[in-house]
Amino acid sequence: MFRHTKLLQFEAKPEKPDAAYARKLQELIGGAYGEMTVTMQYLFQGWNCRIEGKYKDLIMDTATEEIGHVEMLATMVARLLEGAPATVMAEAVQDPVTAAVIGGMDPQQAIIAGGGALPNNSQGVPWNGAYIVASGNLLADFRANAAAEAQGRLQTARLYNMTDDPGVRSMLQFNLARDTVHQKQWLAAIEELEEDGLETPIAPSALFDEEDQVHNNTVWRLSDGHDGSKGGWSSGPDGIEYLKDPRPLGGPGTAPKPDPALYGTYEPVRDAMGTMKGKAKEVKNRLTGKNR
Amino acid sequence: MFRHTKLLQFEAKPEKPDAAYARKLQELIGGAYGEMTVTMQYLFQGWNCRIEGKYKDLIMDTATEEIGHVEMLATMVARLLEGAPATVMAEAVQDPVTAAVIGGMDPQQAIIAGGGALPNNSQGVPWNGAYIVASGNLLADFRANAAAEAQGRLQTARLYNMTDDPGVRSMLQFNLARDTVHQKQWLAAIEELEEDGLETPIAPSALFDEEDQVHNNTVWRLSDGHDGSKGGWSSGPDGIEYLKDPRPLGGPGTAPKPDPALYGTYEPVRDAMGTMKGKAKEVKNRLTGKNR
Amino acid sequence: MFRHTKLLQFEAKPEKPDAAYARKLQELIGGAYGEMTVTMQYLFQGWNCRIEGKYKDLIMDTATEEIGHVEMLATMVARLLEGAPATVMAEAVQDPVTAAVIGGMDPQQAIIAGGGALPNNSQGVPWNGAYIVASGNLLADFRANAAAEAQGRLQTARLYNMTDDPGVRSMLQFNLARDTVHQKQWLAAIEELEEDGLETPIAPSALFDEEDQVHNNTVWRLSDGHDGSKGGWSSGPDGIEYLKDPRPLGGPGTAPKPDPALYGTYEPVRDAMGTMKGKAKEVKNRLTGKNR
Amino acid sequence: MFRHTKLLQFEAKPEKPDAAYARKLQELIGGAYGEMTVTMQYLFQGWNCRIEGKYKDLIMDTATEEIGHVEMLATMVARLLEGAPATVMAEAVQDPVTAAVIGGMDPQQAIIAGGGALPNNSQGVPWNGAYIVASGNLLADFRANAAAEAQGRLQTARLYNMTDDPGVRSMLQFNLARDTVHQKQWLAAIEELEEDGLETPIAPSALFDEEDQVHNNTVWRLSDGHDGSKGGWSSGPDGIEYLKDPRPLGGPGTAPKPDPALYGTYEPVRDAMGTMKGKAKEVKNRLTGKNR
Amino acid sequence: MFRHTKLLQFEAKPEKPDAAYARKLQELIGGAYGEMTVTMQYLFQGWNCRIEGKYKDLIMDTATEEIGHVEMLATMVARLLEGAPATVMAEAVQDPVTAAVIGGMDPQQAIIAGGGALPNNSQGVPWNGAYIVASGNLLADFRANAAAEAQGRLQTARLYNMTDDPGVRSMLQFNLARDTVHQKQWLAAIEELEEDGLETPIAPSALFDEEDQVHNNTVWRLSDGHDGSKGGWSSGPDGIEYLKDPRPLGGPGTAPKPDPALYGTYEPVRDAMGTMKGKAKEVKNRLTGKNR
Amino acid sequence: MFRHTKLLQFEAKPEKPDAAYARKLQELIGGAYGEMTVTMQYLFQGWNCRIEGKYKDLIMDTATEEIGHVEMLATMVARLLEGAPATVMAEAVQDPVTAAVIGGMDPQQAIIAGGGALPNNSQGVPWNGAYIVASGNLLADFRANAAAEAQGRLQTARLYNMTDDPGVRSMLQFNLARDTVHQKQWLAAIEELEEDGLETPIAPSALFDEEDQVHNNTVWRLSDGHDGSKGGWSSGPDGIEYLKDPRPLGGPGTAPKPDPALYGTYEPVRDAMGTMKGKAKEVKNRLTGKNR
Repeated sequence: MFRHTKLLQFEAKPEKPDAAYARKLQELIGGAYGEMTVTMQYLFQGWNCRIEGKYKDLIMDTATEEIGHVEMLATMVARLLEGAPATVMAEAVQDPVTAAVIGGMDPQQAIIAGGGALPNNSQGVPWNGAYIVASGNLLADFRANAAAEAQGRLQTARLYNMTDDPGVRSMLQFNLARDTVHQKQWLAAIEELEEDGLETPIAPSALFDEEDQVHNNTVWRLSDGHDGSKGGWSSGPDGIEYLKDPRPLGGPGTAPKPDPALYGTYEPVRDAMGTMKGKAKEVKNRLTGKNR
Repeated sequence: MFRHTKLLQFEAKPEKPDAAYARKLQELIGGAYGEMTVTMQYLFQGWNCRIEGKYKDLIMDTATEEIGHVEMLATMVARLLEGAPATVMAEAVQDPVTAAVIGGMDPQQAIIAGGGALPNNSQGVPWNGAYIVASGNLLADFRANAAAEAQGRLQTARLYNMTDDPGVRSMLQFNLARDTVHQKQWLAAIEELEEDGLETPIAPSALFDEEDQVHNNTVWRLSDGHDGSKGGWSSGPDGIEYLKDPRPLGGPGTAPKPDPALYGTYEPVRDAMGTMKGKAKEVKNRLTGKNR
Repeated sequence: MFRHTKLLQFEAKPEKPDAAYARKLQELIGGAYGEMTVTMQYLFQGWNCRIEGKYKDLIMDTATEEIGHVEMLATMVARLLEGAPATVMAEAVQDPVTAAVIGGMDPQQAIIAGGGALPNNSQGVPWNGAYIVASGNLLADFRANAAAEAQGRLQTARLYNMTDDPGVRSMLQFNLARDTVHQKQWLAAIEELEEDGLETPIAPSALFDEEDQVHNNTVWRLSDGHDGSKGGWSSGPDGIEYLKDPRPLGGPGTAPKPDPALYGTYEPVRDAMGTMKGKAKEVKNRLTGKNR
Repeated sequence: MFRHTKLLQFEAKPEKPDAAYARKLQELIGGAYGEMTVTMQYLFQGWNCRIEGKYKDLIMDTATEEIGHVEMLATMVARLLEGAPATVMAEAVQDPVTAAVIGGMDPQQAIIAGGGALPNNSQGVPWNGAYIVASGNLLADFRANAAAEAQGRLQTARLYNMTDDPGVRSMLQFNLARDTVHQKQWLAAIEELEEDGLETPIAPSALFDEEDQVHNNTVWRLSDGHDGSKGGWSSGPDGIEYLKDPRPLGGPGTAPKPDPALYGTYEPVRDAMGTMKGKAKEVKNRLTGKNR
Repeated sequence: MFRHTKLLQFEAKPEKPDAAYARKLQELIGGAYGEMTVTMQYLFQGWNCRIEGKYKDLIMDTATEEIGHVEMLATMVARLLEGAPATVMAEAVQDPVTAAVIGGMDPQQAIIAGGGALPNNSQGVPWNGAYIVASGNLLADFRANAAAEAQGRLQTARLYNMTDDPGVRSMLQFNLARDTVHQKQWLAAIEELEEDGLETPIAPSALFDEEDQVHNNTVWRLSDGHDGSKGGWSSGPDGIEYLKDPRPLGGPGTAPKPDPALYGTYEPVRDAMGTMKGKAKEVKNRLTGKNR
Repeated sequence: MFRHTKLLQFEAKPEKPDAAYARKLQELIGGAYGEMTVTMQYLFQGWNCRIEGKYKDLIMDTATEEIGHVEMLATMVARLLEGAPATVMAEAVQDPVTAAVIGGMDPQQAIIAGGGALPNNSQGVPWNGAYIVASGNLLADFRANAAAEAQGRLQTARLYNMTDDPGVRSMLQFNLARDTVHQKQWLAAIEELEEDGLETPIAPSALFDEEDQVHNNTVWRLSDGHDGSKGGWSSGPDGIEYLKDPRPLGGPGTAPKPDPALYGTYEPVRDAMGTMKGKAKEVKNRLTGKNR
């Protein structure tokens, strides 16, 4: 069960409105690596966690924090939209600066939300549940979490450089800091999973005896670059091998003959003279009156 | 530019058809962590790579291999569907085993694809471009790649246990092996990026001086679990700190007064007697003929 | 900012697992009228609310409760999936009951979530942000809320009849009760908005003077049913009028001639003899070598 | 079965083209509360209506009208795009007003539709079927209809203020009027359903005896606002009660131990010395050649 | 403007209910090539048609018919669902035939629609606007129409073989007939466009002088099949040429150096000794307290 | 299996960057008729092809080429974005030309992709698998292919006129040429299918005896245009007939009485006095404390 306080985790006050920037911030709310994603990803991971204790508690602490990040960003957007030109008439388009600002605005923030944030990304695509993962395997999931925080911090850093409003920058400095510690914690938890003997570096730590032992340590050189084998990953006794001119191991990828009732196109039966049996020709003549 | 050979990278021949399993395999084709995802993710990362040489070559080698994995799975699905009951009449539903198989089949594999694979997941949701990421930052992207291969190997391992067909298992053993080496290579490439001084563990390696220095090493305890601080991540001189009873740093998250032309609901102006100015009441009376 | 307790708002313990029912419950988690929808709808409405006090507080109280409802349902799904046949081999399909259960299961709950809930509906379609609305106009939004709670209670009632597990039923009885009070509160809040003079029954309470006064009280009879005018809505001095044989008020819906650079098809210029000018014919002949 | 006349229900002629506004109008065509939504919502409700007579006839009359509203808006968009700068070269961007207009245009209206409307919202997101509801329960559905008409009228009112073209305004005045009468009719039909004894205010009118009688009239105060209980909804003998400090009723939301074949992370078995059994460590050493 | 009659274009009465088949029929309602698609595709093409007369009238006649086809199918689905086991308890799953039927049903037809049709395909994916095209170029669009009717007739034929209910088959026989004449009419209209000199076989009939004259008649042999050149398309004076061993015409696809403010990974500047300038290493050490 | 060379099929070098145009080009990458669509459509058609030889080889040759087209466009986008104003501060918005360019840019190309292409269309909607078709019936599919190439060439032609950059135009001239030959080849292959007796003009060439013989050659005049019958399609012995005043052939589209457990609204049972049985009224009174 959850509780809410009206106070924000961190202040979200721009110095002045900036309607074009309000659109860009939507990426951090409803984008694939926005705050709605980490909120829902961590919540479902916590609810789906099968081992009580430090891992589950860390997940739920972080999940609960992220709901508050959506709140901060939604509040910031509403404030950036204060006084945005919602009623500009056609003549206003004659003022190029106003016109340009309107051109760069998110039309739905005015039309749908009345000057507020939406659960969308910066292009207006609604957030969707396929952005998240909660597999029950903590190694696989923590790696996805570290990846999500990295993409999120990268996007925040890019957006930080797209404004010089001190109020916006102050909040983004806080967000950058949180993305830093969250990356650090998921990376540390990955190491801890290994130290606790729960998972190995390769997820999941299973089926290694059954997996194909010939092909689990080779890169197939299928592009004509010459430098793939120059990485440190190729050296050492356990280094990955390069197959310089790999050959296919399988036969041709033919599909079987279709069930006739599905009306796929297949090779017709022909008689000894090579004449097709069947009535395709006649059907054609019956259906079409034109000479083609 | 690409070239194609008709031979499959690895054989994709089931011992016998299994229409219900053909549906499940769709997850590895068009799911969020299926082969279409890694194909497109690596292709866009390669095209968007800003540093020539070993990293870009490794990306393009792997990307090109993954197209062939979609091909293997699509071929496998078509063969698993051979002879599937496409024309079963209502009476056939009286045979419970046949009925159960039909109930578990993917209806679109018959109706749309005529007995072939679709670019969908196991629930019929079409693959979509939001599944992939190619940010131009190699650390952030390789971490996403290692995460994707981990989820992909996990799903392959689960599907491996859902069949005992030797032909299907043989192909999945190959896929497991490829997911192992791909995880290994992305993890190694992440270390190499650090060794080459190109990126640091925290992505992106920027804005650290500007980010909030007070809040970049603390976990906010916002769930009532007591074990979050018991992880190894809390120990050592650089260990993450726990805030046991964190307090909000911001003020209330109020939204500003709306532009009246957007017709949001706001506090009306009242005269000294507390009577509202405006005509809401009259408008109401004019519009509704009933006593409510 | 939010806080979380590990205790559920209400118990979520099935008496025994039921994997097929676990799929159906997904509708209440990630469906268009599921708990993720009301959670996000109320959160964004609260953050976008422009009038402090009783309305905003009611919204935020309810929003915070709904997060806990997603939690209850996700926990219930994980427990319903305990021991679900994740590893059934092809032979098992020969047992019709087992086969039928597998056929009716959500394949992604096993393959993706490892036996847990997903942010999807009962067909596997991911939840998406377009399900919610937060317009800043409280009348319009509370009406959407009352509608959402009605659809949600209706779906809960239908699902209630699809199980006889006492543990599941107990939780759904609680959910039904919450949907009852939530409907009641939004309906009461709509009346209060009118009593406070903030909004009128027709949302938004604006532009009535400018709207077309001739056509704002008539039903156009455009289907051949005869009973539309027999409702109570037609009676009384303010009753809605029926136009028995309405005639179009506009002219033909022609689209203007296209910009030639967009290559739309338009009427060619012809000379006095009716011969087309232009070179379409010649272009055609140049391009095609076959007699058609 | 349907029939069509070429005459529009109401005239749709702008005084002059306005390409930027043409994009905004897409919200009323293909947005979540646009005319495609009410068209499809009412059609499916009519086809799914289980009670012949006044209700069904009212639904089908309105549904049929709405198809004509999509037609009016699509025609308006095509006319607003007349002469839009489809072929502007890079130099034209040097003229700021032209550049601004182009920046604010919908690129697909030119590239895909050749200067026409699309079945999309104002951000280019395609209309989708999840926007509509047709549950078979008329109270639940009419409430959704009244909500949809309220949001639709609100958005129309906002768009009305974003233009001063007399032709566009004239059409929107008609649309406002239709949204007024449609709200009125659905609200009246809701009352009629109650008067006819078919449904009660709480939808559906079922399971009240079985629902939890303790929790169907309380608001849980889960946010720290103090004003939620000050609404009129708290007063009177049937007023909603406020739980000032509500306590969770359930136990912890633990998920059960996973099926080992799904490879979730779980607590390993340890021997009396606390040493883990199993081979995670060895597997790890075999897989990784580097000292980490 | 549209009008509606309650009579169906053709009878839609199954002899007996078949809940599993009701799910499959959803493909013809809300699938990519279902009746909602042709309805909306033809409506938008008609509204976007820039040439009055025979073509536009043909489009609007067909569009209007298709709305009635959605109606027939929605009615058929409701009737196929009559008496479907909506309330089956857990015990009922012990009857394998009932269990199998339930497993194959569309859960949303019961839970959401109360025993009716949905605007979804057979997998529950909602119809969406991206399925349709209305480009303003009649040749391009009529070709898309002929393609849509071909896929639609193919799917109808497949579904025809999946039932033996005389009432369902009778309606599908009508639908097959309509798909036949619609294919025929669009193919005839394509020929008429050419005969009228409005369009040429290659759409659009423009830019032929500017297009690359060297590469507009060659197939690049990029797969290792040997038979591509054996088709009739290779013969005759205008036959398509085969490039047996085509070579890339462009240089390497390098991406330019990124804007540093976007934090892409790029080659660092090194001093004469090969030592990197910059602080990546130090940043790394500061951030991580562990020896890695 | 596939292989890749780093050289592009054709050069993709703009003379100078153009960030606004980079957004428009996304339509050719990830739009419904962009290069990702033809890539995936041809790949799945090839893998799903049930007849070896010339048709399959032609499909796979073309499919493999199309992957390289996505590559060319992605490279072009990255180069068009070189030096794009990623870090423009709020003041820069004061320069109207810069502001306009920013307003017209794709925000995600900077925020997500760091100055690269995305798998999206020009509005930011991600590509999705429902855009493609691979039915196993070659006539139906080749017709879809010819339609896709026509729409693709049309969009390319429109985009060609939206730039005057010689480097962009040179690449688009190549693309136009490829779209020409691909249209030509699919049209020729359609004729070949008929000449080989494999398919007839009406797809699929099946069920003609069973289809309704009365209604497979008539246009139903359901719109009030008078010119639909003036096309050449009406003439000749096999010309399509026009039904001037068609009448519905079916009865009313009533839905059956619902299962009571689904709580649809239906006609209540009344006693001899016309009084409704049941307790709807009482339930209502119990639930609501207000006089309405």
